[in-house]
Amino acid sequence: MNIKAVINILGKVMLIEAGLLLCPLLVGAIYGENSYVDYLVPMAVAVGAGLPSCFVGRRDRSIYAREGFVTVALAWILMSLVGALPFVLSGALTSYADALFETVSGFTTTGATVFDKVEGLPHSLLLWRSFTHLVGGMGVLVFVLAVLPDSSSGAMHIFRAEAPGPSVGKLVSKLRLTARILYAIYLAMTLVEALMLLAGGMPAFDSFVHSFSTAGTGGFGIKNDSIAGYSVYSQMVIAVFMFLFGLNFNLYYLILIGSVGKAMKSEEMHGYLVIVVLATLSIALNIMSMCGNFAEALRLSFFQVASISSTTGFSTADFGQWPAFSKGVLVVLMIVGACGGSTGGGIKVSRLMIMYKAVIADIRRMLHPRSVVSSKLEGELLDERTERNVFTYFALWVAIVALCTLLLGLDKGDLLTNFTATLACIGNIGPGLGLVGPMANFGWFSAPSKLLLSFVMLVGRLEIFPIIILFAPRTWKRG
Amino acid sequence: MNIKAVINILGKVMLIEAGLLLCPLLVGAIYGENSYVDYLVPMAVAVGAGLPSCFVGRRDRSIYAREGFVTVALAWILMSLVGALPFVLSGALTSYADALFETVSGFTTTGATVFDKVEGLPHSLLLWRSFTHLVGGMGVLVFVLAVLPDSSSGAMHIFRAEAPGPSVGKLVSKLRLTARILYAIYLAMTLVEALMLLAGGMPAFDSFVHSFSTAGTGGFGIKNDSIAGYSVYSQMVIAVFMFLFGLNFNLYYLILIGSVGKAMKSEEMHGYLVIVVLATLSIALNIMSMCGNFAEALRLSFFQVASISSTTGFSTADFGQWPAFSKGVLVVLMIVGACGGSTGGGIKVSRLMIMYKAVIADIRRMLHPRSVVSSKLEGELLDERTERNVFTYFALWVAIVALCTLLLGLDKGDLLTNFTATLACIGNIGPGLGLVGPMANFGWFSAPSKLLLSFVMLVGRLEIFPIIILFAPRTWKRG
Repeated sequence: MNIKAVINILGKVMLIEAGLLLCPLLVGAIYGENSYVDYLVPMAVAVGAGLPSCFVGRRDRSIYAREGFVTVALAWILMSLVGALPFVLSGALTSYADALFETVSGFTTTGATVFDKVEGLPHSLLLWRSFTHLVGGMGVLVFVLAVLPDSSSGAMHIFRAEAPGPSVGKLVSKLRLTARILYAIYLAMTLVEALMLLAGGMPAFDSFVHSFSTAGTGGFGIKNDSIAGYSVYSQMVIAVFMFLFGLNFNLYYLILIGSVGKAMKSEEMHGYLVIVVLATLSIALNIMSMCGNFAEALRLSFFQVASISSTTGFSTADFGQWPAFSKGVLVVLMIVGACGGSTGGGIKVSRLMIMYKAVIADIRRMLHPRSVVSSKLEGELLDERTERNVFTYFALWVAIVALCTLLLGLDKGDLLTNFTATLACIGNIGPGLGLVGPMANFGWFSAPSKLLLSFVMLVGRLEIFPIIILFAPRTWKRG
Repeated sequence: MNIKAVINILGKVMLIEAGLLLCPLLVGAIYGENSYVDYLVPMAVAVGAGLPSCFVGRRDRSIYAREGFVTVALAWILMSLVGALPFVLSGALTSYADALFETVSGFTTTGATVFDKVEGLPHSLLLWRSFTHLVGGMGVLVFVLAVLPDSSSGAMHIFRAEAPGPSVGKLVSKLRLTARILYAIYLAMTLVEALMLLAGGMPAFDSFVHSFSTAGTGGFGIKNDSIAGYSVYSQMVIAVFMFLFGLNFNLYYLILIGSVGKAMKSEEMHGYLVIVVLATLSIALNIMSMCGNFAEALRLSFFQVASISSTTGFSTADFGQWPAFSKGVLVVLMIVGACGGSTGGGIKVSRLMIMYKAVIADIRRMLHPRSVVSSKLEGELLDERTERNVFTYFALWVAIVALCTLLLGLDKGDLLTNFTATLACIGNIGPGLGLVGPMANFGWFSAPSKLLLSFVMLVGRLEIFPIIILFAPRTWKRG
């Protein structure tokens, strides 16, 4: 383990976080909130820890898979530890466990909150909450790779450990350029959404904050009733952008370079579309009697399906009151999640497609033991290793969900609450059902439960392996 | 597809079922219940369909994997269709869907019932319910292989398709002898349990019926409060035998031939023991405050853990009233199930151990991409094919559970009820939580839901693949 190289990158991450904290600082100044200290202290901590670290390990920057996983896991934990400070310093939260939960929820783009009411919080803090979504959505280490000129030889290991989805590829031969293209698409789309919301009459602050939360598929809002109070136009803009941010960003790159035809052939996109359309229609039919007419049912259903399937977590209705079938559909969407290579969470559509194709191939092999069977995704042959990695990921995912649900049982919630709270956290969604429904919050959990759920959010965002490898004793053995 | 060979075996299965129906017929005669017609009609149906079928396909009996799966799936469906008739003919149930649910629940050793009250049902019918557990526990096709002299060349394919667990091996070189040894151990253990219950003062009829239900890890009782009304001695005898029937029968064979040391080294047995002990202790601590003292808590906890982990489903307490943590532990036990090669259901301890070892090996490969990593179970190297089959099985299992839970949402139950009803059926357990808790029943489900759950019970008992292959269009193509 090249610990010095790890520390070097972590130092850079800390310096970047100090820079990011300038934004809420400025917003606080604009709104005259006298909140300088709330952000200057964490900036000082980040610079104090980060600057010396940048001088460590300048000689040997070789990074392999192991270092990649450990760097990503530690970077996200450190970012959250520092990013939680403004919540406590501002007095908005009194417990550091609460602040940490809120910050991890922000960076991992979960959007689960401990706040009973968000109206009345200072603008600077509301901005910081949603800003963590924007940062976490595309990934902070992708950002490091994009802005720093001297990325080391093993940068691909870092990129692979942070980026979501079963297979991670570079768009162009240079990794740094890939990272820049991804960030450019990401920020441009965020800006377009903000402008469209502005054009519909949403206040400027609200427009940007909601765009940040949508872009990262996070879900932190600034109203107690999430998005329900805004115009139907605003709701539909947000719904469509939630859907768009749930797609694989490679598609946007393909469209940008003119390969529209290739983008339109994406099997994962087709799968995601089918899921969204089927879920929207079946829920709309199921809740129609509650809504008066089909159009209203369709509107509520589409917003919630786009929100949950992209793992954003905004809401315009209390889906906790919907019938068991609709709730069941939403739980399935929570498990499925968005596309690989998006800012969304969950298991990812592409993983499920790989498993589906692998299972079909297995059944064919059972029927004809001597025939050679192969399956393809996006035109490429699926090799045994990719399939195996997806199965391994899935088995670990189920085990972690079961264990977390079980441990939450020692707290006050019922089984459905604990199960959906776990799903909402590991899938980086936000709301669940029962006591963590869209009109409720996570504030009532005990501090150990909040730490457990924070851990699970990180596990979900980093797709399990970096966190497991960080804590595996074998990682820290010599050799 | 050699359809004639399949029909030939199905004919033999029908004749055997006709023979099995003699038992309730006799019991009805002993108790003077005047129920001859209830059993003579299905016997006539079975003989009428079975006898001509035995003359089909006498020339070419070649059976391959495909025929094996299809034979097993069809045999279980036909047996259930015929076995359901006594419930309707006796007037105990008016709906054939109810009768089919009860019979599938019996043969698959699930033990979920549609009866509100079982006290008051005729003795012959109570015996038939528990007798289906005894028949289904070891498997009816294993029985065919054991009793018929002329088992065809492809009998191993049938044995493999019906026997539970990730890897199925013969105990001795001859398959017929293997089947006979398994049945001899099975029936001997059943008899020992019945005698021990008799010795404790349980009436003879009750002793045998409960032994049949325990042996198949089924769970049909003859009292409205399951086992709660019997003496502590009887409860403990049943608890211990539930545990024993949840173990791999290969262990008993090893003990019989004197290889006690080898039997004691079984990793799966160790895993099962650890699960049972941990679950018993953690639930006992969790429910202690409800029970007054630890000894009482331990007694209730051990009975319920033995019952659920062996997938029997008897109860001595309403665990629906237990705290969320205890209920969570029971749900995990429902998922895990018993050992491979036992009469129990669930995913099986050995499958989970294979997945665990495969995941650990994968993480080691991630850390050291160039090293050769292998894992072993029961002293034998795990090959990629076995691991892959287990992962495929697991993925399908999760998909079926999700789909069934979702579809049940169109019925009256809440999400927790629907989820645990699905688990209780696919794991062949019996009771779940909520509206299908240990003090409730499945009678309130609509007819389509009951048919869906019956299907899921068959899927669980036959471990998914035979049923999927029966319905796969590719199975029925030429070639």
